[in-house]
Amino acid sequence: MIIGLAQFNPLIGDVSGNCQKMLGMLRQSKAENVDLLVFPELSLTGYPPEDLLHYSEISDAIQQAMIELALETDENFALLVGAPSLNEGPGKPWFNSVWFLAEGKIMNLVHKSLLPTYDVFDEDRHFESGAERLPIFWKGQALAVVICEDTWNIEPERPRYHRDVLSEMRETGFDLIINITASPYHQGQQHQREKMARFHALRFGLPFVYVNQVGANTGLLFDGSSFIMNKNGEVIQQLPPCQEGVWSWNSTNNSSPIAIPAQNKMEVLYQTLSLGISDYFRKNGFKKAVLGLSGGIDSALVACLAADALGPENVHGILMPSKFSSAHSISDAKDLGNRLGIHLEILPIHDSVDALERTLNPHLLGRSPDLTEENIQSRIRGVLLMGLSNRYGWIVLNTTNKSEAAVGYGTLYGDMCGALSVLGDLWKTEVYALSRWLNRREERIPDSILTKAPSAELRPEQKDSDSLPDYDILDPILQKYIVEGFGPSQLIQEGFNPNLVHRILSLVHRSEFKRFQMPPVLRVSTRAFGSGRRMPITFVFPETE
Amino acid sequence: MIIGLAQFNPLIGDVSGNCQKMLGMLRQSKAENVDLLVFPELSLTGYPPEDLLHYSEISDAIQQAMIELALETDENFALLVGAPSLNEGPGKPWFNSVWFLAEGKIMNLVHKSLLPTYDVFDEDRHFESGAERLPIFWKGQALAVVICEDTWNIEPERPRYHRDVLSEMRETGFDLIINITASPYHQGQQHQREKMARFHALRFGLPFVYVNQVGANTGLLFDGSSFIMNKNGEVIQQLPPCQEGVWSWNSTNNSSPIAIPAQNKMEVLYQTLSLGISDYFRKNGFKKAVLGLSGGIDSALVACLAADALGPENVHGILMPSKFSSAHSISDAKDLGNRLGIHLEILPIHDSVDALERTLNPHLLGRSPDLTEENIQSRIRGVLLMGLSNRYGWIVLNTTNKSEAAVGYGTLYGDMCGALSVLGDLWKTEVYALSRWLNRREERIPDSILTKAPSAELRPEQKDSDSLPDYDILDPILQKYIVEGFGPSQLIQEGFNPNLVHRILSLVHRSEFKRFQMPPVLRVSTRAFGSGRRMPITFVFPETE
Repeated sequence: MIIGLAQFNPLIGDVSGNCQKMLGMLRQSKAENVDLLVFPELSLTGYPPEDLLHYSEISDAIQQAMIELALETDENFALLVGAPSLNEGPGKPWFNSVWFLAEGKIMNLVHKSLLPTYDVFDEDRHFESGAERLPIFWKGQALAVVICEDTWNIEPERPRYHRDVLSEMRETGFDLIINITASPYHQGQQHQREKMARFHALRFGLPFVYVNQVGANTGLLFDGSSFIMNKNGEVIQQLPPCQEGVWSWNSTNNSSPIAIPAQNKMEVLYQTLSLGISDYFRKNGFKKAVLGLSGGIDSALVACLAADALGPENVHGILMPSKFSSAHSISDAKDLGNRLGIHLEILPIHDSVDALERTLNPHLLGRSPDLTEENIQSRIRGVLLMGLSNRYGWIVLNTTNKSEAAVGYGTLYGDMCGALSVLGDLWKTEVYALSRWLNRREERIPDSILTKAPSAELRPEQKDSDSLPDYDILDPILQKYIVEGFGPSQLIQEGFNPNLVHRILSLVHRSEFKRFQMPPVLRVSTRAFGSGRRMPITFVFPETE
Repeated sequence: MIIGLAQFNPLIGDVSGNCQKMLGMLRQSKAENVDLLVFPELSLTGYPPEDLLHYSEISDAIQQAMIELALETDENFALLVGAPSLNEGPGKPWFNSVWFLAEGKIMNLVHKSLLPTYDVFDEDRHFESGAERLPIFWKGQALAVVICEDTWNIEPERPRYHRDVLSEMRETGFDLIINITASPYHQGQQHQREKMARFHALRFGLPFVYVNQVGANTGLLFDGSSFIMNKNGEVIQQLPPCQEGVWSWNSTNNSSPIAIPAQNKMEVLYQTLSLGISDYFRKNGFKKAVLGLSGGIDSALVACLAADALGPENVHGILMPSKFSSAHSISDAKDLGNRLGIHLEILPIHDSVDALERTLNPHLLGRSPDLTEENIQSRIRGVLLMGLSNRYGWIVLNTTNKSEAAVGYGTLYGDMCGALSVLGDLWKTEVYALSRWLNRREERIPDSILTKAPSAELRPEQKDSDSLPDYDILDPILQKYIVEGFGPSQLIQEGFNPNLVHRILSLVHRSEFKRFQMPPVLRVSTRAFGSGRRMPITFVFPETE
């Protein structure tokens, strides 16, 4: 049997548009003698459709599209399409299903049983768990078709679910495992996917076909990276990351392991962030981006990623110097802009700062400038960027990194503004690492930006290190606290300085309100700010007495 | 048996602080010969603890507090305390439990079985469903102790869950139903609660005790309004809304229905919004509020609510006139401020607008002013309010209403700024209704504010009705679309003008990105912006062809 793996990039909710694209892919696959073309989880609606599932229009559109797709199938060509299906019984209103289309009709539906409801996933919100699971039969083969989480209940010590979906089909028997998935990227995720697939390939002695969504839906980045594993748990076909298309596999011939070039982690991170930017613009119908260039590393990296993703001619870098901006910042920013070939413009903020401070004068007199004056500068920059956005339809890219966002080292409505946070899931140390990687062949980001001490330049001679520990001390604590779930007592047990731990955690807790209003963040870790980490705003961190 | 109903107002995560407050209440109850004191769902941690449940500190703190509480119990005095408990088996890491404390120890735990995961509720994220359910025995009585959603699976045509928890205990038998809950307020919710309780009281012929959390946790407002129903489904005791305390009931004596004064809906709405403001300030350690006064109805209502909730001496109203501000707006705002007794200050924005526009001059020349210039005004006001907030620690109250938020008629980082959105779940027509109710005895909000046509005053002679349909046309469409889940085809079937429906829905869809960055909203409906309505930002609303 020739199986086509459709690494598909849907637009959420655009059922008819997604269907049209599927029709194009399937006609090509038919011409190439594919027997079964497999689309990923919820590919017809895009993943996740979220509360669009509250509206009956989506159900009508799915039904119509499935009929249209089924009409393209016949005795020799079948489709597996991930899409929601209505649950007529008790429980949640939908199933997360695979629709099996063949012989010109809708043959059968299989419903996902294990529904991830943690991190960014909310599947229990809309979907009922599928009960009985049976293989799908096609061309004399019994296919164990599973959906994403269905095969992830593999931690023997602490199983997340009560069921083992593949084992439930053991009695009927099956010849091949096909997992259709919408598995978002995070750093290191591909290794986990292979481990999971290998576990099942080896325990059943069967090939494992893994078909993943590709493309970005605002902050959720799907890298694709679909693959096929043979019964020995060896990868025999590897689809490229971040690329849409159909690749086919002849299940009878081809089962020798291939030499997979070790994925360069930085390369995939770079590709996925680029996809995050370009899909946000393309899918929303935007073309041009604007961002503030401070002369620092964060805005330099965002400018570089945006220039690559959108074309340098579509990126506007705005320098907005104040009286505290150093000469090197301005020259570094200009140097960067010239190297990248983006548009550069200088809009000094002195006059606006003076005007705002004159208006607030009675409140500012007779005291040393503090955060009030610092934030006014940052917010005026926000007003200027948003003004350009309103004037031209340019989209503001946010340049906040995860370390800053974590400790609240940023100005709400100022440097925290923007439509999309590009670096909001990268620690400052990762921002440096990715920047150095981008510079591996040529100096795209000026070395001086990479080597100087980080500063917000909101007061004379300011350095980040005046208010924060060095990032190589800060980031590991934040990583353990935010991503790995170590509480303060565990952090202290790990050997971190207790005062430092309490100081940092207090900064994190006091800035929940800021992150609540942060733009959506391109997610590249297992615990990104936004729906991946849902914290109260009004709270006290629990302590024993 | 004398049962104490503790209408309890916890601070989320503050396990030891909540425990101390419980100790005070229980000592008083013991002195008053209470046999069983009942605290609401998750009252020890506050509801909802969200991802604080990722940290082991909360488990340690719960264990410690439960021991402390249990030590206060004896052969005559028992406690039911809602709190998470660890799940050692497969599945989610926690149960949402009632801890039964008596005879000086932790006697027993009962785990919630039906876990709401819809609207603002995310219980499947952390909690495993409780399996076998048994009554709790105390003083010769079998108590069917259930937790909130456990008794809400009562829609016979479309049951949300597969289980009927109370029926499962039928075999063992029970004498009394006790539901501990954290049921957030929305308009009309008390009627639903009574209907639900009556259903169970009548089908089992038993009294129903309903103990609800009180207090606000950022946007979630718990009104309390606990009650006791007799076996005939009549309310025999009604606790006041929005008030913390313990009320007791002698289950042997008292079962005659009481005359419950019809709750004035506006009164409860007012009390709940006030609680939302005052608890946000109190629990976060804030004292003073600041808001922009435009002379319009939204800021007038917020000023009035804030003055009542925080004391007028703690509210600063800032008038920030531009060249488009009408004389009547300024005089109306002053009149309002004087009537409420709040602080008033005028900070004109002309100079700042001029400075910002001068800086952007090359981009603004040679064209008529548009949204760019309008938004600059709104954002400068945001900068001024945030400047005062930074300078003095005053907290910015947002004045956006739900109609504006829905159609994106507001400026991100401008009038959409603030720590808390007071009116973000009230349609403009509801803003008027509540304002008129507040004026029922005296003219607190000047009549001229109530009667003039709404305007953002960002360009000459601007009226909301220039860009939007009248609110009495707009609001019913938004209510049906957003709250009641009617899609465009149903709206058109209902008789709404198709062009109008498509125009309004398009405004709603295009402004998802704005609402994503909106402050938390005090929730008073079944579908509030925020976690209650989770929509994609990059999407197309599905249509059939």
